[in-house]
Amino acid sequence: MKQYRVAIINVTGYIGAEVARLLHGHPGVRIVSVTGRSEAGKKLGKVMPHLSDIDLTIEAEHGEADLVFSSLPHKASADACAPLVRKGIKVVDLSADFRLKDAAEYPRWYDFTHPAPELLPAAVYGLTELRRSEVAAASLVANPGCYPTSAVLALAPALKAGLIGPDVVVDSKSGVSGAGRSPSLGTHYAEVNESVAAYALEGHRHLPEIIQELGAFHTGGPVSVTFVPHLVPMTRGILSSCYAPLVKGRIAGGQQGTAELLHFYREFYKDEPFVKIVDAPPQTKQTWGSNLCLLYPAVDPRADRLIVISCIDNLVKGGAGQAIQNMNLMLGFPETTGLQALPVYP
Amino acid sequence: MKQYRVAIINVTGYIGAEVARLLHGHPGVRIVSVTGRSEAGKKLGKVMPHLSDIDLTIEAEHGEADLVFSSLPHKASADACAPLVRKGIKVVDLSADFRLKDAAEYPRWYDFTHPAPELLPAAVYGLTELRRSEVAAASLVANPGCYPTSAVLALAPALKAGLIGPDVVVDSKSGVSGAGRSPSLGTHYAEVNESVAAYALEGHRHLPEIIQELGAFHTGGPVSVTFVPHLVPMTRGILSSCYAPLVKGRIAGGQQGTAELLHFYREFYKDEPFVKIVDAPPQTKQTWGSNLCLLYPAVDPRADRLIVISCIDNLVKGGAGQAIQNMNLMLGFPETTGLQALPVYP
Amino acid sequence: MKQYRVAIINVTGYIGAEVARLLHGHPGVRIVSVTGRSEAGKKLGKVMPHLSDIDLTIEAEHGEADLVFSSLPHKASADACAPLVRKGIKVVDLSADFRLKDAAEYPRWYDFTHPAPELLPAAVYGLTELRRSEVAAASLVANPGCYPTSAVLALAPALKAGLIGPDVVVDSKSGVSGAGRSPSLGTHYAEVNESVAAYALEGHRHLPEIIQELGAFHTGGPVSVTFVPHLVPMTRGILSSCYAPLVKGRIAGGQQGTAELLHFYREFYKDEPFVKIVDAPPQTKQTWGSNLCLLYPAVDPRADRLIVISCIDNLVKGGAGQAIQNMNLMLGFPETTGLQALPVYP
Amino acid sequence: MKQYRVAIINVTGYIGAEVARLLHGHPGVRIVSVTGRSEAGKKLGKVMPHLSDIDLTIEAEHGEADLVFSSLPHKASADACAPLVRKGIKVVDLSADFRLKDAAEYPRWYDFTHPAPELLPAAVYGLTELRRSEVAAASLVANPGCYPTSAVLALAPALKAGLIGPDVVVDSKSGVSGAGRSPSLGTHYAEVNESVAAYALEGHRHLPEIIQELGAFHTGGPVSVTFVPHLVPMTRGILSSCYAPLVKGRIAGGQQGTAELLHFYREFYKDEPFVKIVDAPPQTKQTWGSNLCLLYPAVDPRADRLIVISCIDNLVKGGAGQAIQNMNLMLGFPETTGLQALPVYP
Repeated sequence: MKQYRVAIINVTGYIGAEVARLLHGHPGVRIVSVTGRSEAGKKLGKVMPHLSDIDLTIEAEHGEADLVFSSLPHKASADACAPLVRKGIKVVDLSADFRLKDAAEYPRWYDFTHPAPELLPAAVYGLTELRRSEVAAASLVANPGCYPTSAVLALAPALKAGLIGPDVVVDSKSGVSGAGRSPSLGTHYAEVNESVAAYALEGHRHLPEIIQELGAFHTGGPVSVTFVPHLVPMTRGILSSCYAPLVKGRIAGGQQGTAELLHFYREFYKDEPFVKIVDAPPQTKQTWGSNLCLLYPAVDPRADRLIVISCIDNLVKGGAGQAIQNMNLMLGFPETTGLQALPVYP
Repeated sequence: MKQYRVAIINVTGYIGAEVARLLHGHPGVRIVSVTGRSEAGKKLGKVMPHLSDIDLTIEAEHGEADLVFSSLPHKASADACAPLVRKGIKVVDLSADFRLKDAAEYPRWYDFTHPAPELLPAAVYGLTELRRSEVAAASLVANPGCYPTSAVLALAPALKAGLIGPDVVVDSKSGVSGAGRSPSLGTHYAEVNESVAAYALEGHRHLPEIIQELGAFHTGGPVSVTFVPHLVPMTRGILSSCYAPLVKGRIAGGQQGTAELLHFYREFYKDEPFVKIVDAPPQTKQTWGSNLCLLYPAVDPRADRLIVISCIDNLVKGGAGQAIQNMNLMLGFPETTGLQALPVYP
Repeated sequence: MKQYRVAIINVTGYIGAEVARLLHGHPGVRIVSVTGRSEAGKKLGKVMPHLSDIDLTIEAEHGEADLVFSSLPHKASADACAPLVRKGIKVVDLSADFRLKDAAEYPRWYDFTHPAPELLPAAVYGLTELRRSEVAAASLVANPGCYPTSAVLALAPALKAGLIGPDVVVDSKSGVSGAGRSPSLGTHYAEVNESVAAYALEGHRHLPEIIQELGAFHTGGPVSVTFVPHLVPMTRGILSSCYAPLVKGRIAGGQQGTAELLHFYREFYKDEPFVKIVDAPPQTKQTWGSNLCLLYPAVDPRADRLIVISCIDNLVKGGAGQAIQNMNLMLGFPETTGLQALPVYP
Repeated sequence: MKQYRVAIINVTGYIGAEVARLLHGHPGVRIVSVTGRSEAGKKLGKVMPHLSDIDLTIEAEHGEADLVFSSLPHKASADACAPLVRKGIKVVDLSADFRLKDAAEYPRWYDFTHPAPELLPAAVYGLTELRRSEVAAASLVANPGCYPTSAVLALAPALKAGLIGPDVVVDSKSGVSGAGRSPSLGTHYAEVNESVAAYALEGHRHLPEIIQELGAFHTGGPVSVTFVPHLVPMTRGILSSCYAPLVKGRIAGGQQGTAELLHFYREFYKDEPFVKIVDAPPQTKQTWGSNLCLLYPAVDPRADRLIVISCIDNLVKGGAGQAIQNMNLMLGFPETTGLQALPVYP
């Protein structure tokens, strides 16, 4: 297998560290440099003990590489990635900075003016299953947000096939690692433990991403999305419960409808190694540590409504795993390389 | 304060034990007997160490009392309560056995034929805030289920005022104590911890209760309800996220609409000691151990949709606390007697 | 019941808020002012939603009161308490600033020179059960640390009676709220959840307190203490496992010895409302939210060693509850006033 | 790499399933059959969704194999393994049935008479690091218990070198998966969550194993062991805090002593891929999902006592991972084959 050199910018956050963890077992790449400004100069294993088998020192600036992962915060990531892209280095950006096609959305949702809007058209939104060929050809992949990954994989098939109307509710439950590694009162153990909270009802930053990507699979105009994220007391995992009105005459009611939906979703994702359509509502634990997305579509037998339950590990399929899945396509590796570990249970 | 004698049937489940815990500080009643068939003959504190200050022995049959709480499972509870009601003893039944007005619903949802359908018309559905005067006059109160308590308090005001259409989605997240004290794989620690699961998509037993009670507040026909409960890794608490289409022309869009809704809900519940309308999305921890229901209504600024976030402690307002709130009315005590402890935080 | 005015300095930490929560139900005192510098000017319920029934505004400086609780950090607390004590106001200090009798210990363990060493001799170490009469007569009570409360109640009886040698190991497991409300990486949810950690092996700040207080119950010289605290993924609770060599000839071996110990401990604590000697190893949940300390003493049948398992709620008996227990004695109330709520289970 | 066929008896428990999960990525073996009596006839992925990539049907009896893992309960495992051993099939038994050398211990600790005592002498106690060459030559390996693995790796070096006296305290904290997959009140979520408990003070079944194995490294007679296990609210992980008196004159006091110990332990385990001596007290999360054992030895600066903190994942190094480590030696693979995945963090 051909060997490539990769760098990870900002390895000291949860997503960056997860890229490193997963790449450690990848036979086709070698991590040649990792950065993390505040910890520069320290051994990686000193800051992240679970990575101590990776013998690298954290640097302030990354070295030469064939492909770079950036897990910097938004704005900083665009600043770091743009020059790399211009130099022809392949980039997988795990921030939001190249996900939105309309540069005007950045000041609105992220409070900054995009520093490189000319790169947005060529950036590929890396929800691999839905944009495989584009990803394979891309120089710059915008790795999707964790919530959008769970929601778009759940709803795009039904929307594309015209089974549902363009008015959806996405009610997502996320583990706390999604909030990152910087301490705050909202992620302080005693505040979060033994509690569930809803947040961002006025509009979460992942909302425009969900609207944009679902819209790409709907032919009759924009999709209306109500998205409410919730924090639940666990470290990893997202379960999104997605609701949409069934278009009359397409899917039967009741159990028969659920059977038809299962068949339809199985066909849609039949060649996908990481998307599994399951026979009963899944739980996030069944994806823990893996790159899987589990989907369970059903018809509400009393309400002419589609329900899809979608589970992922927010740091893997919702972050680092999908980034590596995209890298595999960009570098010509089989898509599952380095991502074959089973979920850890219990 | 006048003293009454109360009995608790099936004190050895979580709900029965919680009735005992809360009554221990009630100045107007004395627990005179507690039952629990499999543990009969043992001291209460031996089986439930937190109740060891209550000096009672668990019996097979309860003794004479002015009011009886039953926290037996469904079917068994109707069998136990019916004779008491016929004898004129006041009863608060914490099972589902007297919640549904239509006896035909019991075989459908609970797999049994109701043994005392003639008692259903006079049984009062004890969602205290919405049926206070009926509760005060009742001999038999059917204490609401935990999920319906959270959902009906959240949606009834808007439905009654015609602010929303009769097509709602209730997405509920519950702590594991709601599943009771009997061990099963589904409540086994290592299965539940670090995981979120959806369940009962085909129809949870609390659904007919929600439909019935929301229907009572809607003048234009039945209410369509999609209800999906979820299990989250915590012991206590329910957060229900409720979604409904706004009726055009009633509530403004965006932040203005949210302000109008907050005002409307505050007016609706202005005299209620246990329902608080809060300024930001609540979390279940803010109700832990207390009889509070916290509500946050909002307008989705992009989707003409009402969102109400509702939080309770499933064992208190969703069970034992509301039962005592009802008892207070039935026995003529101030409604908050014995229920004034603040939530335990953190 | 006579009414006293109390103030709480630094109500915005977990311990200060817990004093407020517990005092809310106390019939003999009225909270007249609460302080919290960074939140001054805000309503208490805005910062601490669970306290919204207490209608007070957080102030920068406390007002006039008959008794003051200080839950400031060390050093700041001595600075705040000393002037009050000099003015003759009764003070319960929940920091460590008046716990150690030897002023020279402060620079060693807490990195500051004590600003009021002349107050140390009269300050009473408020482990109520062991110093009841001193507490009742005190103007300044140094409320014990959470770990020392669990360890000293466990070992003092056996040490005092000469049943064990003066060489003990205290292995404590604490919930995360013990680390306070200020966010840090060490209390960040994703770092703490699903993990156990030992810390402070070189010497925890509660160690000199344990040595001092155990020493007071040992006649033959100082007591050697190995103390290792551990952080476990829960919000509240401390379980201390205490080990000490049995003095030969005093206690039988094996089960007979355990029976003798149970009898001895029951006699020792027979009039104590908050210390219970239990028949089987307790768990912290059995004390949750209450002022109880549960003790289980046993003989290791193979090793001539005493084992005592001790459980408390670190914020109640290990903090705010014991502070109120001390206040009750200082103000002449029955010792259990306001502290009778049962543990919350499950 | 040569290919071997392996079978897993009782794949439906946590340990058996973990053997399957880890073997899935092993290049030298193929799982040819899995058993689980109560689930026989079902697809493995139906019962254990995380294993659905392993295309096997659970059988009542295992098929032909070169090596068999048994994760049956004690007694049943001896009955199943003995005939295999007699037929010359290599066996790794994950139960306790071949761990104790003295057959008389089985009725005492496990309530059964050993059915094949003649196999005990040749069975090798598979704590790989301490018995590598014996394991490599063995036909029957008794895979160590989770607690003994953590304790013996921590104390054997110091005991063997005569640095400590033979009188140790092992205070262990375990995640709940250690109690297995069968539901019980003691592992019911709401009972275990937000609680720590000590148990088995009268003598845990892993105690004779610890005594036997520590004894093997102590030349001057038996080792006295006080062992107290605790249940903490997490799924995976064991942290054992081990205490022992330092022999005078061997190790310096205070920080100097800790430095000497770190050096000594590093030398002792210098060629071990799975045992790491760390510079600060470890936490169990740093081993999560991996085969690592992290050790931190220290001198109590005030008490002439050795403290060793030891962390493992109870299901991996404390079970399935060590079993595969032993299998690798028995089949001639490099010892780390299939076990190189890094810990999953956070």
